Amino acid sequence: MADSTPAFGAGALTMPPRMEVNLEDCEVEGTIPSEIDGAFVRVGAEWYYPPKYADDAILNADGYISSFRISNGKVDYKGRWVETHRLKEQRKARKQIYGYYRNPYTDDKDIQDPEHPNLRTVSNTAPLTHAGKLFTLKEDGLPHEIDPNTLQTIGPWDFHGKWKSETFSAHPKLDPLTGEMVSFGYEATGLCSDDLWIYTVGPNGQVSNEVRTKVPYVSVIHDMALTHRHVVIPFGGYVTSKQRLLDGKIHWGWDQNQPSYIGVMPRDGDPKDMRWFKGPERCMMHTFNAHSEGNKVILYAPFYDGNFFPFFPPIDGSPWDPRKARSFIRKITLDLDSKKDTYEEEILWPNPIMDLGKVDPRVLSLQTRYLFAPFNDESKPFDRSKAPNGPARVTNSYGRFDITTGKMESVFAGATHSLAEQTFIPTGTSGREGEGYLIGVASNFAERRSELIIADAERLHEGVIARVLLPFTAASQVHGEWSNARALGLS
Amino acid sequence: MADSTPAFGAGALTMPPRMEVNLEDCEVEGTIPSEIDGAFVRVGAEWYYPPKYADDAILNADGYISSFRISNGKVDYKGRWVETHRLKEQRKARKQIYGYYRNPYTDDKDIQDPEHPNLRTVSNTAPLTHAGKLFTLKEDGLPHEIDPNTLQTIGPWDFHGKWKSETFSAHPKLDPLTGEMVSFGYEATGLCSDDLWIYTVGPNGQVSNEVRTKVPYVSVIHDMALTHRHVVIPFGGYVTSKQRLLDGKIHWGWDQNQPSYIGVMPRDGDPKDMRWFKGPERCMMHTFNAHSEGNKVILYAPFYDGNFFPFFPPIDGSPWDPRKARSFIRKITLDLDSKKDTYEEEILWPNPIMDLGKVDPRVLSLQTRYLFAPFNDESKPFDRSKAPNGPARVTNSYGRFDITTGKMESVFAGATHSLAEQTFIPTGTSGREGEGYLIGVASNFAERRSELIIADAERLHEGVIARVLLPFTAASQVHGEWSNARALGLS
Repeated sequence: MADSTPAFGAGALTMPPRMEVNLEDCEVEGTIPSEIDGAFVRVGAEWYYPPKYADDAILNADGYISSFRISNGKVDYKGRWVETHRLKEQRKARKQIYGYYRNPYTDDKDIQDPEHPNLRTVSNTAPLTHAGKLFTLKEDGLPHEIDPNTLQTIGPWDFHGKWKSETFSAHPKLDPLTGEMVSFGYEATGLCSDDLWIYTVGPNGQVSNEVRTKVPYVSVIHDMALTHRHVVIPFGGYVTSKQRLLDGKIHWGWDQNQPSYIGVMPRDGDPKDMRWFKGPERCMMHTFNAHSEGNKVILYAPFYDGNFFPFFPPIDGSPWDPRKARSFIRKITLDLDSKKDTYEEEILWPNPIMDLGKVDPRVLSLQTRYLFAPFNDESKPFDRSKAPNGPARVTNSYGRFDITTGKMESVFAGATHSLAEQTFIPTGTSGREGEGYLIGVASNFAERRSELIIADAERLHEGVIARVLLPFTAASQVHGEWSNARALGLS
Repeated sequence: MADSTPAFGAGALTMPPRMEVNLEDCEVEGTIPSEIDGAFVRVGAEWYYPPKYADDAILNADGYISSFRISNGKVDYKGRWVETHRLKEQRKARKQIYGYYRNPYTDDKDIQDPEHPNLRTVSNTAPLTHAGKLFTLKEDGLPHEIDPNTLQTIGPWDFHGKWKSETFSAHPKLDPLTGEMVSFGYEATGLCSDDLWIYTVGPNGQVSNEVRTKVPYVSVIHDMALTHRHVVIPFGGYVTSKQRLLDGKIHWGWDQNQPSYIGVMPRDGDPKDMRWFKGPERCMMHTFNAHSEGNKVILYAPFYDGNFFPFFPPIDGSPWDPRKARSFIRKITLDLDSKKDTYEEEILWPNPIMDLGKVDPRVLSLQTRYLFAPFNDESKPFDRSKAPNGPARVTNSYGRFDITTGKMESVFAGATHSLAEQTFIPTGTSGREGEGYLIGVASNFAERRSELIIADAERLHEGVIARVLLPFTAASQVHGEWSNARALGLS
């Protein structure tokens, strides 16, 4: 176990932008369409204090929420720390007092509290807008409610006491037809527990259903999918145990011999209706979407061949294998009428993509045509002469994959840029899938600052239509979402 | 007159850091002495919106206040806009609506208000701590009171209605023996008025004396000096007129044929006691200090040979002459017993310096030994291979000039750095002049971000003892000051 080593380096883009920021009327190149009215809200992980262990997961860094409020072609940027219990304790101590990712036994002795692991959440993974409220999410704790105009943290939220799981997924799904949110918590009753509790929350923000079930083995359940009839729960490979935590290790290790699993259950079903389909070694982090066709569920997901995270090491002592850390667009068929306990998988596009996929929220739970994902277009190389400090691996394009044609269209961010996850902004009055904009943040390594880029999702080949230039490096982003101004009562 | 041109460029250090910032527990290299407890407060000029006229003076940009709160070796940074009337009006309009520096006739027609020019102040020049309050200052308006802990603007301050001048200098002087503040307003009764009103404010913040006098000609009176017996008022060269303003020109032009003047008056004296000494062409912006010896006043000041500001052009149409824009350490003798109406001047050090001079505030108004000023040590050249975007002119060192020996000691900021004004932090229990620290902000052009540097003022040759690394470019600084934590009730 490595000792405490400050992680702050002096080099621009690798230096955490730890400051809280207000920046009104950002500099804009190009024109932002006036029909865009809302906020691009981003959540990411920044070390408020350097980690206690140098080999800790970046996933353990403190939550930071930022937003680009866009209205009438103008943009206001704001960034705030998520004021978790944990951040408040660190601020009091004026130093890092928490240990490894999801291992309270490695915290400073005087604050160890393994019975309440969700007090350690950094709420650093994703934003959520539902029932008029804005939240930050992380799968090891409760949502934190955020004031959508100031981005100040209001506090943890348990849905009027009806969310009984100690944890809440960072990837709930919103049904565009009913306004319902379906979400879940795993390790729902404490560290390493095999409890998976699945909830439905009505458009009024009230819990309307709870299903308490169990998992085949305790693993990361990072995302889910929702169809108009089914809930889909994929996971695989990561393992943990109480002994592992007592041994002072990071929460997860990778077991290449564990099968992957995808659970399918009718929405608001009975725990006994959960059916688990098995597959080979897979790292299942994110999904695009799923839909039900008769008794089949079709899932689109950018899963990895194997372990994506070097900081969750193989439990057999073998080195992390970067060749398996590649994600592809997969179509997975889960046949509820089949007697087999396995799923079928097809790779739809030959090149690897970033696994941070999105679809038009209007088709969530329904049949999908377009999958949006960032990837590296190797025909457009990074210009290292202009940006010698650029990263080893670059993501330079936002793509729209057409399932019906198998074709990828894309927009290029720039020769010294690397992209974070994109988000889709649905606009227009047609209700046509894919009518809207792609939006996301690029690091410009030549100028050591960040840019927000916007492209017409139906005209990606026309390039970036507007670029918002920040005079600093924006906070990092795990996930972002688009919140309509009226959905949050934005001023 | 040039048309409106956006001044925001895309290039890092030239891009205005327009954001408001909170950054707790900044990264520190080296060790900040624990005896330092207070705030280094800085005021500067940033365009909230690009100027209406591309050739406008940067002095017309919006006020921005920032502070480094230093305590127990830790540093918290904060930056806020000064919420002037003008900034509020711009924010409402979401664009620049104000014209040239101190020319209301060039404002957008619907907001022109030449009868109340001080509503146009941007309050962007200097901070002031007096009588437990913190202010931002600019010579064309009233002080703006600032909450010292949040840096939020409380509003303009007229000293309980007793400050009758419409304007207030950015360089009041604080008497360390009496706790009094002596300050003044010029153009005290409106645009181009020749009224110079001089005030004394007691340590309780109440105006205790007012002297209403006139100037030989209307000019920039940017700074003053104070001795234990006299008030010293220097100015020269800049001229204005109502017609000039009606013609749509920037407030000041330079008239090389105008003499410079230094006024001397007994503190709390009668207007008729003001004696004006004449001299050659000089641009008199800042002073170091002055003291009275019998009926002589000795003034130390880093005056320029001629016009420093290219954006205040010569009125005879000749081009701005950079060779005259050089500042030297000058000793000026004003003999009140002399029948002559001229002053005597001696240059104490042969090399030019930046005119942003400081002394230990414990000797303000008294005999001085040490003058602190930034300058460019040409023996330590800027490394353009590491910072190709570096500025044409660099200031790389903070100096301490010893009047008794004529020697300059200095501390070097770095080969890719350029310095803003330094500030002196008095510490220790000896009361010895010069015991303390020099503190100031450097732009690091290699890394396109700012650093606060701290050096022991009595051991400058030992180099920088602590460096606070900001992950962004700090707001610009015109002037800064050190505020003791107790003087402002800092939390």
